[in-house]
Amino acid sequence: MVATLESATAAAPAHVYALTLEYDGTDFAGWQRQPGRRTVEGVLLQAIAAVAGEQPRLTAAGRTDAGAHAHGQVVGCSLRRHWDTDRLRQAINSALPEDVVVVDAAVAPPAFHARFDAVARRYRYVVAARRDRFAVSRQYAWYVRGPLDVEAMRHAGDRLVGRHDFAAFGRSPRPGGSTVRTVNRLAVRRVDVPDIPATPNQRPRAVVVVDVEADAFLYGMMRSIAGVLVAVGGGRMSEDEVAAMLDAGAGQRARVPVAPARGLHQWRVTYSSPGQP
Amino acid sequence: MVATLESATAAAPAHVYALTLEYDGTDFAGWQRQPGRRTVEGVLLQAIAAVAGEQPRLTAAGRTDAGAHAHGQVVGCSLRRHWDTDRLRQAINSALPEDVVVVDAAVAPPAFHARFDAVARRYRYVVAARRDRFAVSRQYAWYVRGPLDVEAMRHAGDRLVGRHDFAAFGRSPRPGGSTVRTVNRLAVRRVDVPDIPATPNQRPRAVVVVDVEADAFLYGMMRSIAGVLVAVGGGRMSEDEVAAMLDAGAGQRARVPVAPARGLHQWRVTYSSPGQP
Repeated sequence: MVATLESATAAAPAHVYALTLEYDGTDFAGWQRQPGRRTVEGVLLQAIAAVAGEQPRLTAAGRTDAGAHAHGQVVGCSLRRHWDTDRLRQAINSALPEDVVVVDAAVAPPAFHARFDAVARRYRYVVAARRDRFAVSRQYAWYVRGPLDVEAMRHAGDRLVGRHDFAAFGRSPRPGGSTVRTVNRLAVRRVDVPDIPATPNQRPRAVVVVDVEADAFLYGMMRSIAGVLVAVGGGRMSEDEVAAMLDAGAGQRARVPVAPARGLHQWRVTYSSPGQP
Repeated sequence: MVATLESATAAAPAHVYALTLEYDGTDFAGWQRQPGRRTVEGVLLQAIAAVAGEQPRLTAAGRTDAGAHAHGQVVGCSLRRHWDTDRLRQAINSALPEDVVVVDAAVAPPAFHARFDAVARRYRYVVAARRDRFAVSRQYAWYVRGPLDVEAMRHAGDRLVGRHDFAAFGRSPRPGGSTVRTVNRLAVRRVDVPDIPATPNQRPRAVVVVDVEADAFLYGMMRSIAGVLVAVGGGRMSEDEVAAMLDAGAGQRARVPVAPARGLHQWRVTYSSPGQP
């Protein structure tokens, strides 16, 4: 009887939910569960286990590095029990620590896989180009001694748009996997913060925001793009050198400057079907 | 001889500098030095002692509470030795921890007092009105379950502008001191964050920013103003009740909701002489 019940349970169709997460990566060793480390996946699994009484299978749209942040990480979560999505979101949030929060929960198709079903990802990199380092929001942007030539960064960024082998800019998530990716859009803009206090000696402050949308990203790709563009903005690298690095492939990887994780913000994931996730 | 030298040193005119500080208040027990607590004044004194080899006298434009942040705190610093202001700023910064930074140093008149010479102060309060709590930047804004009626907040704010006895909204820094203050300007605005990722179920995010400029602030005054305006924005208090609270004075203080320190940002200080600091 018990065996029959268990089989019946195992055979029952799972209820799959797409959770959208925001998290502050400062105190996490990245997304992926690792024994003995505090990871986002780890605390999410604990929270779901606490409220749902089961250990779900999770799929994530992408991993994030230690110290990197997420505003729209999508996680597929398969549960045996049916949940109202508002109740599920609120229940998980009540069990999560304050540096991670579920901002949306939606019903997903039974075969939903947050990574394989994603058709585009957007990441943002924030650079604070200032005379002095900064204290407020220092976890969320990379401080570089300014100024940055945003126009030059934009031109260099244009050379990365399109379908390329990005081997110089990162590693495939699968050993031996393809390093060809398509960058749909790369935008560099200066966001002025005009009403920040200014003494006569203080210059107005600004951040430079790099937004990149691609079909998928290699490991380290967004931080390499940011590192290279900041080198261009600071006059230490030319647009042509960026293009040459891209052409040269994996052999150039060691020469590519990689921006620190704190300025990296996973931004959003796009799925093909309008209702998903 | 030694006595003579010491007298000569004591009689020598001090060099006074106006330092402008930015700090993240999260890990500080406020501005003011307290034995056994980590305070901004404490770490600043340590840094100056380390680089200048002397314990200066400090004056601050205003104290800030534990957890409150500053973007333009002005500190008068009297040193025996002359310093180039760029060198002084850089030297102190090299000795400060990463949550506090000197963003400006300027020569000030010998009698400069950062608090007594200030003619106006500006504070900002940031409220994040969202369906769910937030993780990124949670140290820098107060989360309230939205939405907020910004128009109603604005009308209530208008009732606080001008010269009033703000006894219901805070305490004088001096025991028995006047609680009359003049609010020059109070602005409430919604700042939309339109390109934050949105799934079909996520609403666009916004923060509500309250900027107040006054000749001076009582202890707790800005947090009380924010607390009251958020109560109005959430429909729990009317504009007339705010005005009645103000009129009723100190007896009403216990009824005034006080917003948490994390959303409070000291913004700037104005001095009368154009060159100072």
